[in-house]
Amino acid sequence: MKICFVVAMQAEAQPFIDRFGVAEEKDFFAPLPCRLYRANVNGSELDVVLNGQQHGSDLVGCEAACVATMAAIQRLQPDLIINSGTCGAFRKNGAEIGDVYLSNAVMFHDRRVPGDDAWGTQALGNYPVFDRAAEIAQALGYKMGKVTTGSSLDLQPCDAQIIEENKGELKDMEGAAVAFVCSLYQIPVLLIKSVTDLCDSGAETYEEFSRNLAMASRAVAEANARVIQYLM
Amino acid sequence: MKICFVVAMQAEAQPFIDRFGVAEEKDFFAPLPCRLYRANVNGSELDVVLNGQQHGSDLVGCEAACVATMAAIQRLQPDLIINSGTCGAFRKNGAEIGDVYLSNAVMFHDRRVPGDDAWGTQALGNYPVFDRAAEIAQALGYKMGKVTTGSSLDLQPCDAQIIEENKGELKDMEGAAVAFVCSLYQIPVLLIKSVTDLCDSGAETYEEFSRNLAMASRAVAEANARVIQYLM
Repeated sequence: MKICFVVAMQAEAQPFIDRFGVAEEKDFFAPLPCRLYRANVNGSELDVVLNGQQHGSDLVGCEAACVATMAAIQRLQPDLIINSGTCGAFRKNGAEIGDVYLSNAVMFHDRRVPGDDAWGTQALGNYPVFDRAAEIAQALGYKMGKVTTGSSLDLQPCDAQIIEENKGELKDMEGAAVAFVCSLYQIPVLLIKSVTDLCDSGAETYEEFSRNLAMASRAVAEANARVIQYLM
Repeated sequence: MKICFVVAMQAEAQPFIDRFGVAEEKDFFAPLPCRLYRANVNGSELDVVLNGQQHGSDLVGCEAACVATMAAIQRLQPDLIINSGTCGAFRKNGAEIGDVYLSNAVMFHDRRVPGDDAWGTQALGNYPVFDRAAEIAQALGYKMGKVTTGSSLDLQPCDAQIIEENKGELKDMEGAAVAFVCSLYQIPVLLIKSVTDLCDSGAETYEEFSRNLAMASRAVAEANARVIQYLM
């Protein structure tokens, strides 16, 4: 099984890259800023694609995730895309900082169009996820949750309402965009997310995110390695 | 000059497609749902790429715009991308329903991350636009304005604040996503937008948008044809 990871931030991917000791293949996606790290694991190809940078910082958010996922699928033809990274979660659902989740569903929470018709349904998304996600989570002892994606780090009342109405549990900035592109190409997608911040903790999100980013990135790197060993 | 239009909705593109009498090249972008219409104008190739459909409705919003723009650039290698379509505007800036604008700037208004650093700057975007936009607007008698893009049809207080702070004039759902992808490939991009709704009119946005969509689409089709004749 050929697995390709799509990861937004270098900080999220670095512990994982370090663990496998892989080197970058420079300019593989040029002129796109996406970066490719490639390794051989148990005789199969393992690819890690980062969004890369623009304007002096790591590209995050849904547009960069679309570009990286589309480039990865076109050039690497993976059997499975894994979007791994960090996310927010909710204390009221039992989440704690550093918890690792696999997704059992994924949708957008910040695409508001009139909601009762096909157009509203399409805006929310609700894309398919890898049909072995539950099996993997059970085998490796990870929680499962519904990922909702938006383009902002904060949580506005309009976002909270859609998350509440749709029983969202993990709030990220890329998952649904990666899953949307995978749905177009009919490539299975798995989301592995580690919690950096609790949306209902009362703490300032960016401060909490920054404080926990390195720890959560190590947690997700450990989870990535275990999922790879399980699948490959 | 080889021009490629990227348009979200069939309704937005149809008057333009009808005018040039072009036929669709079926499945050109398969497995992507994007649709290609191709014509020869004054001896040059003219392409119109639509996002296509998913879940039973026309794909709108930033993720579909990224995919369509990336596919268009990769497969058609245009000299210029034109994102044409409809938008909201503000009565307080002198806008009226059916007005046609060319963009003099484009950015996102719904990607909120901490704003004082490189990451916040990147989230807002502010991508380059075609350096002949002002010349064309002057020659053909169109207004110019700054386009801000978000994934929702409504206007939340957090969106209005960013639009106000950044002096946005035209609110759409694709422009900055198209311009972002163009910026990665260094392809010039021009935005041609016709006003379907006034964000500060007090009217219900979806009702106003729906009522004016056909009229605004005819206005933008007329503008597209004039811009083509001017450039090609």
